[in-house]
Amino acid sequence: MITPLSVPKKQQKLYIKNYQTITKNSGKLFLFAADQKMEHLNEDFFGPSLPEEINMPEHVFEIAKAGNAGAFATHLGLIDRYARNYPEINYIAKLNGKTHKFPGDPYSNQLWSIDQVLALRDAGITICGIGYTLYLGSEHEHAMLCQAANLVYQAHQHGLLAILWIYPRGKNVEHEKSAAMLAGAAGVAVSLGADFVKIHAPESGNALELRQAVQAAGNTQVIVSGGATTNPQVCLEKIIAQLTLGTVAGVAIGRNIFQHPLKEAILLSQKIADLVYR
Amino acid sequence: MITPLSVPKKQQKLYIKNYQTITKNSGKLFLFAADQKMEHLNEDFFGPSLPEEINMPEHVFEIAKAGNAGAFATHLGLIDRYARNYPEINYIAKLNGKTHKFPGDPYSNQLWSIDQVLALRDAGITICGIGYTLYLGSEHEHAMLCQAANLVYQAHQHGLLAILWIYPRGKNVEHEKSAAMLAGAAGVAVSLGADFVKIHAPESGNALELRQAVQAAGNTQVIVSGGATTNPQVCLEKIIAQLTLGTVAGVAIGRNIFQHPLKEAILLSQKIADLVYR
Amino acid sequence: MITPLSVPKKQQKLYIKNYQTITKNSGKLFLFAADQKMEHLNEDFFGPSLPEEINMPEHVFEIAKAGNAGAFATHLGLIDRYARNYPEINYIAKLNGKTHKFPGDPYSNQLWSIDQVLALRDAGITICGIGYTLYLGSEHEHAMLCQAANLVYQAHQHGLLAILWIYPRGKNVEHEKSAAMLAGAAGVAVSLGADFVKIHAPESGNALELRQAVQAAGNTQVIVSGGATTNPQVCLEKIIAQLTLGTVAGVAIGRNIFQHPLKEAILLSQKIADLVYR
Amino acid sequence: MITPLSVPKKQQKLYIKNYQTITKNSGKLFLFAADQKMEHLNEDFFGPSLPEEINMPEHVFEIAKAGNAGAFATHLGLIDRYARNYPEINYIAKLNGKTHKFPGDPYSNQLWSIDQVLALRDAGITICGIGYTLYLGSEHEHAMLCQAANLVYQAHQHGLLAILWIYPRGKNVEHEKSAAMLAGAAGVAVSLGADFVKIHAPESGNALELRQAVQAAGNTQVIVSGGATTNPQVCLEKIIAQLTLGTVAGVAIGRNIFQHPLKEAILLSQKIADLVYR
Amino acid sequence: MITPLSVPKKQQKLYIKNYQTITKNSGKLFLFAADQKMEHLNEDFFGPSLPEEINMPEHVFEIAKAGNAGAFATHLGLIDRYARNYPEINYIAKLNGKTHKFPGDPYSNQLWSIDQVLALRDAGITICGIGYTLYLGSEHEHAMLCQAANLVYQAHQHGLLAILWIYPRGKNVEHEKSAAMLAGAAGVAVSLGADFVKIHAPESGNALELRQAVQAAGNTQVIVSGGATTNPQVCLEKIIAQLTLGTVAGVAIGRNIFQHPLKEAILLSQKIADLVYR
Repeated sequence: MITPLSVPKKQQKLYIKNYQTITKNSGKLFLFAADQKMEHLNEDFFGPSLPEEINMPEHVFEIAKAGNAGAFATHLGLIDRYARNYPEINYIAKLNGKTHKFPGDPYSNQLWSIDQVLALRDAGITICGIGYTLYLGSEHEHAMLCQAANLVYQAHQHGLLAILWIYPRGKNVEHEKSAAMLAGAAGVAVSLGADFVKIHAPESGNALELRQAVQAAGNTQVIVSGGATTNPQVCLEKIIAQLTLGTVAGVAIGRNIFQHPLKEAILLSQKIADLVYR
Repeated sequence: MITPLSVPKKQQKLYIKNYQTITKNSGKLFLFAADQKMEHLNEDFFGPSLPEEINMPEHVFEIAKAGNAGAFATHLGLIDRYARNYPEINYIAKLNGKTHKFPGDPYSNQLWSIDQVLALRDAGITICGIGYTLYLGSEHEHAMLCQAANLVYQAHQHGLLAILWIYPRGKNVEHEKSAAMLAGAAGVAVSLGADFVKIHAPESGNALELRQAVQAAGNTQVIVSGGATTNPQVCLEKIIAQLTLGTVAGVAIGRNIFQHPLKEAILLSQKIADLVYR
Repeated sequence: MITPLSVPKKQQKLYIKNYQTITKNSGKLFLFAADQKMEHLNEDFFGPSLPEEINMPEHVFEIAKAGNAGAFATHLGLIDRYARNYPEINYIAKLNGKTHKFPGDPYSNQLWSIDQVLALRDAGITICGIGYTLYLGSEHEHAMLCQAANLVYQAHQHGLLAILWIYPRGKNVEHEKSAAMLAGAAGVAVSLGADFVKIHAPESGNALELRQAVQAAGNTQVIVSGGATTNPQVCLEKIIAQLTLGTVAGVAIGRNIFQHPLKEAILLSQKIADLVYR
Repeated sequence: MITPLSVPKKQQKLYIKNYQTITKNSGKLFLFAADQKMEHLNEDFFGPSLPEEINMPEHVFEIAKAGNAGAFATHLGLIDRYARNYPEINYIAKLNGKTHKFPGDPYSNQLWSIDQVLALRDAGITICGIGYTLYLGSEHEHAMLCQAANLVYQAHQHGLLAILWIYPRGKNVEHEKSAAMLAGAAGVAVSLGADFVKIHAPESGNALELRQAVQAAGNTQVIVSGGATTNPQVCLEKIIAQLTLGTVAGVAIGRNIFQHPLKEAILLSQKIADLVYR
Repeated sequence: MITPLSVPKKQQKLYIKNYQTITKNSGKLFLFAADQKMEHLNEDFFGPSLPEEINMPEHVFEIAKAGNAGAFATHLGLIDRYARNYPEINYIAKLNGKTHKFPGDPYSNQLWSIDQVLALRDAGITICGIGYTLYLGSEHEHAMLCQAANLVYQAHQHGLLAILWIYPRGKNVEHEKSAAMLAGAAGVAVSLGADFVKIHAPESGNALELRQAVQAAGNTQVIVSGGATTNPQVCLEKIIAQLTLGTVAGVAIGRNIFQHPLKEAILLSQKIADLVYR
């Protein structure tokens, strides 16, 4: 790991501690990510094939509590309402959002500021960093690039980690998940000063294609998005391939975990943690 | 009830008091909501089938004064001009608005700030919280999500409750009042940290469909919108079904009350209060 | 009259004084309104049927000085350049504006702030309040609603009156001057906290149609716009009907006065003042 | 001349001094105006019929130094880089700009603030005022009206003069240089509180048509734009007609002067100064 | 060189030192420019004809360290993450950016502020100035002109140099690299107060065409962009022609250097430095 210059001297110890906390001193990161209550409305939480219990927000907090992930990323508002009951979780506060009904090119606007993150931290919650989603190639790219760059900087100013979700998307974008596009997203992440970048898994399914992105990201660490739900065994094998062949620093998994009943979900989460942090 | 982390220690007592005031220590909420003078221009207040007296703004204040609702939600400007004469009412200051003549996807812009709410509170008015309407799927969603998230946070900072009206609407939205959409609205509300969310009644009329939303909202309390005027008895029966079968925490009724002559309106309001707070 | 809560205690005396000044202790208001130099470019000030003298800005100031109106409303920039020579006039500073060449839905943007109004007041000018024009139904409605709400509030904070010009207009608006639309404008005015609202005269010419708006406006006082120039006698009769049958609190007249030679204009203005303040 | 109320007492002496400086105590103004390096890219400075020397920025500064104009108006950035070598010039800092390649309706955005003007003044440069170009009827009119009104006010606050260039232009505008349009521009200028307004010469070539604008502008002084280059003798005769028949307070000439070799340019500038300030 | 008036007295020594540092006291500048990781996504860093090593961000830093360029220009985020390991480099912090997937007219938005540049400088990094790219003729020109003007001013306020990349581009622009357009870009640069302007090489390939731009830029120094990769010998010859025939003050080269293996890249960079600084 490196300490960016934008982390002031008096915050370096905290920054390093946050980094070590979510990576469990391994340099690797397993992020349990669940911001879909806003992003996908309720579609990922209710349906004929889904257990009823997952519809309650407690479900993801219970998984985060027992599933051994390095950190749990979700919208600041949810943290605000639930973290008092789940003080043992390491949080990444997701600071922007939109719904999938937003028309045209995607625009995920900043909803909260660093000040609001700090207020939660001051209230005793372990918030290790912030998250922000950026859609390259969107006609709103200019607004999101600006917000992302500023949030990365401000996070560092206060010893917080900055994780960017970067996805090429918009009427001008083709082959969103090609090796070239994933590497492009990674290159933008390091140009913006991010500590971690969450990118899609390659469309081809070939984990080797991630290597271009890992190289392009330099000292920004690449983690791979889990995508829609698959069979748990397939999911675990995919992760192994991404870590070993793809040489990524970790994974960010949401639906593949939380769309299972609580006990199964926790077990699967623990298995992923074992893979990442072994 | 829970106390969100964004309520600072020294404001927790006030926040709890506000919560207990409008819920009458029941955990339930009957909100008398009348912001239509801006939203629908004068259409809900004047017409061949409507009594003349309802056209005067005093009408809704008189109902709010005597009708036993937990709180009265209306635009801050109306509170500014009438609350001195109606000091016994518990107010929710509605902070954004638009008219139904606004073209294209809906955009209900923030018109007042929390500072202005606090000034009214300092003048001795019982303002228990703020209200904000959010249209998911609108091309202006990004602006409203940002204003809503900030207002929820700032309200909490000052011990005020935050109530969001969330309606999916726009050229990209179909089936606005399906069970899935209502649950989506509820999920966004908790992601934004709201204390209460006002959603539409299900299009199907089946109160059971509200359960998905109630679960999705977690510790954010769901209240159901009354919609256009129906027969008082039908209205009351609908509310009973929403409370018992739908398991919602309350209702927000406007036209179904105020489109009656004052005495009838007050009586109906009192009956609804009895149902909610029994 | 009522004193809105947004007028702080220490400003209440000044607010009441301003109210009494422009209403001459009658509760009625005759506003001499001339912002057309920006709004209509020079079309209302020069033409074959118009006397040359009206083209000079002094013309409207001379009328305001001698015509007995309760106040003179014009753009702040004009007040800035002429009020030193016309210190006896009571001013309403018009704070937004556009030209009639602005394409598409109307957007009358805020051009000056309350600070700039206060600076003129500090320089010894009798500025009793501010004016703002709002076009309901325009695609820019959201911006104007926000500016209007804030200016009303800030005006009150400093003991100034707030007068809104509210006109439904835009590609989405039909029957701009129907009784329903006028009442809608009045209802928005009170929802925004305005002290006075200037609305159009009914298209039908039937002054009785104004009653719906007067009721809808509640304790916000309705004044009626004079519109394009007509025969002075017709103008006076229209005003009588608006005051008696329409029950409005006053009128706002511009072109019907200033498009006459100075002496005639002053005489007509004095006659209108007699009608309103008798 | 009048002193606007927006000039505070302690700045009045400086304001008057600035006015007397650029008018040479005559009440008239000859403004040497050269902002075309941004506005027209390099088209006015290089071409087969133009002497090579005019391509260097020094060319316009040398003319301004020796040509006896009341002031030299150009973009703040140029003043920043050249004024140390040309301390004898009276400057008007042009604060907005665009290129003629900007598509659609014109939008000349504010590029510098009054603070930046003051910093140059503090560095010892004689900056007498600021300039701003405003396109009436453009779909961006609302933004430019707002910036212009604020800059006029702020300039006055610091004893600086405010000169507006006002041109009707946009898809909604016809007959940009008709007598009516020029008078409309003049009326907007006084409504915005400007000290001087630069308008186009009438399309008809008939200087008498300027009288409507001069009357409409009231105590805002009208100066006429020189337009594209013509024969020097024709240029001088046009200016005489504008001053005598058109009764304007002066002229703003750029290309008609600087598109000549230095010596000729200075001589022509001196002749214009003799006409205006005789 | 000249010291702009916007450099305050107490910063002049630092400004001059920065100027001398990157020009090596020669008045000439060889800028090694590599912001393509954001601008072109990963396309310039990975491909069948490219050596694998260039995909790592260290590649450009190693070149900058050993290649004798006057300064290295790259996005602030990259400097933030790598400069601690490369303290010997003179940096120009690129403050805006976009990707080439951004649809429609280009808009390269400001991503970082001068405060963030100063924080890095305070951390001990040699940041000599800032860079900003401006697309003339774009429908977003108005936003970029404003950001550029302000950044130039603020950079000077803190003793930093300001370098503008100016390219005409947009649906309204033809012949982007004609002699006239390049000179137009140069004229805008000096109007904005820039110290250096980076323009394209002429489309014709005729270096003599640069003279118009060099003259138009006045005391703003012109440097020429290297463009896409060509044969090293061709590249060097082009640079010689640009310096001698084109009379430019230097060059800004990126891909032509970094798309070679490290040793070759450093050697080529050193050769260019010899040409510029001989």
